[in-house]
Amino acid sequence: MTTPTAGARPDEVRRHNRTALLRRLHVDGPSTRAELAAELGLNRSTIKALVDGLAESGVVAERVPAQRSGAGRPSLLVLPQPTAAVVLAVDVRVEQVAMGVIGLGGDILGRDSWNLHHRSRQPAEVITHVADSAKLLADELDVVPVAVGVSVPGVVRRSDGLVHEAPNLHWTEVELGKRLEAVLKAPVQVGNDAELGALAEHLRGAARGASDVVYISADVGVGGGVISSGHPLRGAGGYVGELGHMLVRPDGRTCYCGCRGCWETEVGESALCRALALPEDAPRGAVVAELRSLAADPSSVEHRLGEFTEWLALGLVTVVNMFGPELVVLGDLLAVLPDAVVDRVRAVVRERSLVSRAIGGTRITSSPLGRDAKLIGAAELAFEPVLGLV
Amino acid sequence: MTTPTAGARPDEVRRHNRTALLRRLHVDGPSTRAELAAELGLNRSTIKALVDGLAESGVVAERVPAQRSGAGRPSLLVLPQPTAAVVLAVDVRVEQVAMGVIGLGGDILGRDSWNLHHRSRQPAEVITHVADSAKLLADELDVVPVAVGVSVPGVVRRSDGLVHEAPNLHWTEVELGKRLEAVLKAPVQVGNDAELGALAEHLRGAARGASDVVYISADVGVGGGVISSGHPLRGAGGYVGELGHMLVRPDGRTCYCGCRGCWETEVGESALCRALALPEDAPRGAVVAELRSLAADPSSVEHRLGEFTEWLALGLVTVVNMFGPELVVLGDLLAVLPDAVVDRVRAVVRERSLVSRAIGGTRITSSPLGRDAKLIGAAELAFEPVLGLV
Repeated sequence: MTTPTAGARPDEVRRHNRTALLRRLHVDGPSTRAELAAELGLNRSTIKALVDGLAESGVVAERVPAQRSGAGRPSLLVLPQPTAAVVLAVDVRVEQVAMGVIGLGGDILGRDSWNLHHRSRQPAEVITHVADSAKLLADELDVVPVAVGVSVPGVVRRSDGLVHEAPNLHWTEVELGKRLEAVLKAPVQVGNDAELGALAEHLRGAARGASDVVYISADVGVGGGVISSGHPLRGAGGYVGELGHMLVRPDGRTCYCGCRGCWETEVGESALCRALALPEDAPRGAVVAELRSLAADPSSVEHRLGEFTEWLALGLVTVVNMFGPELVVLGDLLAVLPDAVVDRVRAVVRERSLVSRAIGGTRITSSPLGRDAKLIGAAELAFEPVLGLV
Repeated sequence: MTTPTAGARPDEVRRHNRTALLRRLHVDGPSTRAELAAELGLNRSTIKALVDGLAESGVVAERVPAQRSGAGRPSLLVLPQPTAAVVLAVDVRVEQVAMGVIGLGGDILGRDSWNLHHRSRQPAEVITHVADSAKLLADELDVVPVAVGVSVPGVVRRSDGLVHEAPNLHWTEVELGKRLEAVLKAPVQVGNDAELGALAEHLRGAARGASDVVYISADVGVGGGVISSGHPLRGAGGYVGELGHMLVRPDGRTCYCGCRGCWETEVGESALCRALALPEDAPRGAVVAELRSLAADPSSVEHRLGEFTEWLALGLVTVVNMFGPELVVLGDLLAVLPDAVVDRVRAVVRERSLVSRAIGGTRITSSPLGRDAKLIGAAELAFEPVLGLV
């Protein structure tokens, strides 16, 4: 946690501590007062005053834990109350929009999703559908989201939610943040999908407690989110790097970006479909089903996914050499690759990455959050400013 | 500048302000009291007290500026006094060690350098030679360096100066920091050469005022230093990424790192020598002379350096796509490439990097510090803790 400014005024200190306590409960879940005191470095009377205040306004509740350890008075668990603050999360993918209402503590209280086709992928169509769906979800759950987070597979300006370019959606210069704020009547934050996937894994997934992490997402496009020294890595103007457009294969396929043999053209969904002998626009369900059946037949994995695996591995060697992460999380479609593929990727990175050797071995793991990572990341993007205000 | 903690004690505030003022003078050079007050956001009486104190202890002096503007009393210039604090900087390159004694304000007060050969490249030999040379330099200049900074072309652990691997020097697990401290009797900081080149360009070179920068150095090895949001980028354990080991050419040459077609094998000094039809171990002077004569004959640049230029440009497209820098600085041997090569590289990055397009165009420039960048960076590494103590 951050510590309050030494010598700050008492009300500032109290607000700072209150936010830190709420963030702790929101991210790490129910805790006893003693655990909160130890984690936050505050004394028990301060914790008591904060918890009492939050309980009084209905933001937290206290319960006797189900399992009691030892004799004596049970230590009460402090639980965040999900409906004390809810946010709306929107994950705009190339083939689908997924939405969720997420409560304090991170539970997904309600969901909606719909497929996108050529016409329904237009920004105006997506915005209208999101607004309609948001109203239905909120009415159904009887909640009012206080903020909105949106994940977009593209180059996004965080300050105002401008989507500079989302090539696989065919979006250019879309003022998504402003337009959604106008219809949703709540503050909207827009982020790059891979960055939000990394955030989700960092807070609630495979990368909890890790400070140097790369999250790779392969959907139609390939992207990467980097956490460096505990903070999201961004370039000039706050733009997130595009790991999918590293050049891995000079004689590879032509990419819309103007290059040839981008990582995206070699390990994106189309490349995977080609390797699996599926049509390049096969529905996601068919791709996943094929990967699952392949996993049950390890002998054919090398035959069918051998080349795909090599490009995935060689790209990861470069990623690890450039960023020096302790952990790489394979997200999205990459999270359903057969174990044999992931094992081979691990072996190549271990053998060939000099930076992995230097830092004692970069771990490579499949995302436990899978398809929900970006939705969860979008929710956390929305929650961040809210936790200070609840 | 950073601001002191609100409510900090008066002596802490004074020390903080004193360090900020000294850093300003050290990096930006002589300034009037009025400029210092404006830059640091302090009132003139505070500046007066600080300058008077520093002048009394001989750390700064005040002079009438040579050029007087307008009538009235001239505004005195505050000048850092070079010998008030000097550091020793050591740049261990593959073919040579360069040393310098650098004074407050950044002037190089004295230098030494010697070539390395197979035997003299052993750590023990280098350490002994550095110690002898340091003594001679200090005696000659009549100074006592208060700290030492060392640049090494390898994977370095900053916390204790362990050189994990410096492949082109054939060094592995060398406790360089500790061993140099034992013989030099001063605190020693060791850094990766590309990171220090980036630091030097950021403080005193092409990247002043830029917050997202990549510095590329091509010597025998190729490396990169990244400044992201104003801070040096590091991976797990503080290790710096190895941009030279991004894989650009799957059918390229075998690299010692275990890969094939690393950027280093395609655009390092050996590749440049091959392109120029020089022996791969040609002395640096011959390579530079050949590049200079080529620059005078633009018609043959494309013919001789065409392929080299393409690999340099394609690697930079990936670097720009991954880090999103506003500025790329070409250092070391890359700083003496003919203009036609740099122009071609700029054109390729402009056309093919989607991130460059998003951020409004990444600038690409040759290092004005050239061969001194890493020495200057090593000096700044040594100065950083010193400025708070002078």
